[in-house]
Amino acid sequence: MDLWFNERNTDTCNLSIKIKNAIYSEKTPFQKIDFYESYDFGIFFTLDGMMMVNEKDEFIYHDMIVHVPMAVNPNIKNVLVIGGGDGGTVRELTRYSNIELIHMVEIDERVVRLCQRYLPQTSSKLEDERVSLFFEDGVKFVKDKKNIYDLILVDSTDPIGPGEGLFTTEFYRDCHRSLNENGILINQHESPYFEEYRVEMLKSHEKLKRIFNICQVYQFHMPTYSSGHWLFGFASKNLHPIRDHKAEEWEKTGLDTRYYNSKIHKGAFALPTYVKDLLESV
Amino acid sequence: MDLWFNERNTDTCNLSIKIKNAIYSEKTPFQKIDFYESYDFGIFFTLDGMMMVNEKDEFIYHDMIVHVPMAVNPNIKNVLVIGGGDGGTVRELTRYSNIELIHMVEIDERVVRLCQRYLPQTSSKLEDERVSLFFEDGVKFVKDKKNIYDLILVDSTDPIGPGEGLFTTEFYRDCHRSLNENGILINQHESPYFEEYRVEMLKSHEKLKRIFNICQVYQFHMPTYSSGHWLFGFASKNLHPIRDHKAEEWEKTGLDTRYYNSKIHKGAFALPTYVKDLLESV
Repeated sequence: MDLWFNERNTDTCNLSIKIKNAIYSEKTPFQKIDFYESYDFGIFFTLDGMMMVNEKDEFIYHDMIVHVPMAVNPNIKNVLVIGGGDGGTVRELTRYSNIELIHMVEIDERVVRLCQRYLPQTSSKLEDERVSLFFEDGVKFVKDKKNIYDLILVDSTDPIGPGEGLFTTEFYRDCHRSLNENGILINQHESPYFEEYRVEMLKSHEKLKRIFNICQVYQFHMPTYSSGHWLFGFASKNLHPIRDHKAEEWEKTGLDTRYYNSKIHKGAFALPTYVKDLLESV
Repeated sequence: MDLWFNERNTDTCNLSIKIKNAIYSEKTPFQKIDFYESYDFGIFFTLDGMMMVNEKDEFIYHDMIVHVPMAVNPNIKNVLVIGGGDGGTVRELTRYSNIELIHMVEIDERVVRLCQRYLPQTSSKLEDERVSLFFEDGVKFVKDKKNIYDLILVDSTDPIGPGEGLFTTEFYRDCHRSLNENGILINQHESPYFEEYRVEMLKSHEKLKRIFNICQVYQFHMPTYSSGHWLFGFASKNLHPIRDHKAEEWEKTGLDTRYYNSKIHKGAFALPTYVKDLLESV
């Protein structure tokens, strides 16, 4: 079979991945879901044609979304995950024995069920007893929450289609209210390199800055996402990702991580000058 | 025109770039040189079909190859550049008034002449009076040099074709002898992510470790190179890239850089655990 999947960076630039096998395809009320087996990245799935998670580099994304806030506040107990239907974010969270409760809100149950069938590597911990799954709109879910969570992880798609509401001022404000006084929000913060993603990065940062005391951005090398240069936002009421970084405490957990470590925690917040200047401009 | 250039990552994964215009093509005794104009990256050229330099992200590579060593030893006066026919590395070097002499050794004069014609953005400083161009094999050039250079920058292609000799133990040993006691060698150190590049990364590191007292590796986000996660090696006789980092002195130069800054200097040496483990395994 000579089937190639194109991960769109721009209209005129793609990452092209040769497919070994098209595994499954389904159209849900929310989006089109496709599972493929590739030569380089193992099994991966797409939502509306955009790469979400693959077996080869998912560890990078999931390390960086979870361990950075956990090393800033090692006492995190209550966590809300919005999106993240593949389960990789929950998998990393369940490695912390101090976490007592994980609410995961995924709008499309089919993403979860299909990942449980085709991507056990990421979905294997969704049945942990601390995890409650809610198949509803994350935007609505946070509307009536107040002062509950230590950590909210917005593990969303890009701001088009079902993920759009997760990039609005109103949603970020609802997250702020749902967090307690030491609360941290980590959000999918797009990429600085190509114009289309850069615009979304700046919009997101501008909105968060109006709501949270502390708004930082950190980067990681994510080869299958546009340009390979991807960002998360770290927004919080009080805790600073570097000044409150508790490297020793985190290291005592003894967690074995393939991407994250205490040096990369600090290093990830050191942004290229052009990215820093862009973020400061809004 | 619907022409796409494929930058090969593996046999089954490419970065595909739509071409606006094929500008020029020439076969030299060393390699095939092609210049293209693209929608996303401006003008770029390839050697034997591999992307070398493009107008959009060359600043990242050239910032990181030059400013890292310059901020460790701000007294660098004599520099040898091996390869780097596009001139971008020399351009960044010429911004330092304390540099007195730049020897640039490029095996293929046609690369230089064509970049002078089609890529003024990188080649504009090759006529600086401190620069001497040598069109010969870098491997031979360093054979009879001893204790001359403060800095050697190996700005080479991958270790196939004309660049192969620039990844050998013998060449690294000749570089070591060509450097003075505070000498620093920066070398193109490939990428950790895809197997084929990882193998070369490890071979290079293993060889350098046998010869130089200090052998560190640093990373940067280079979207058009394989996986976007690219590395340089920092090998030296005495100076350590972090312990001897002179951030304040460098900042006093007032140089305006779009990627490099003093925080990223430190951050770039914070490698993901899997990369650190690989490098320590050899």
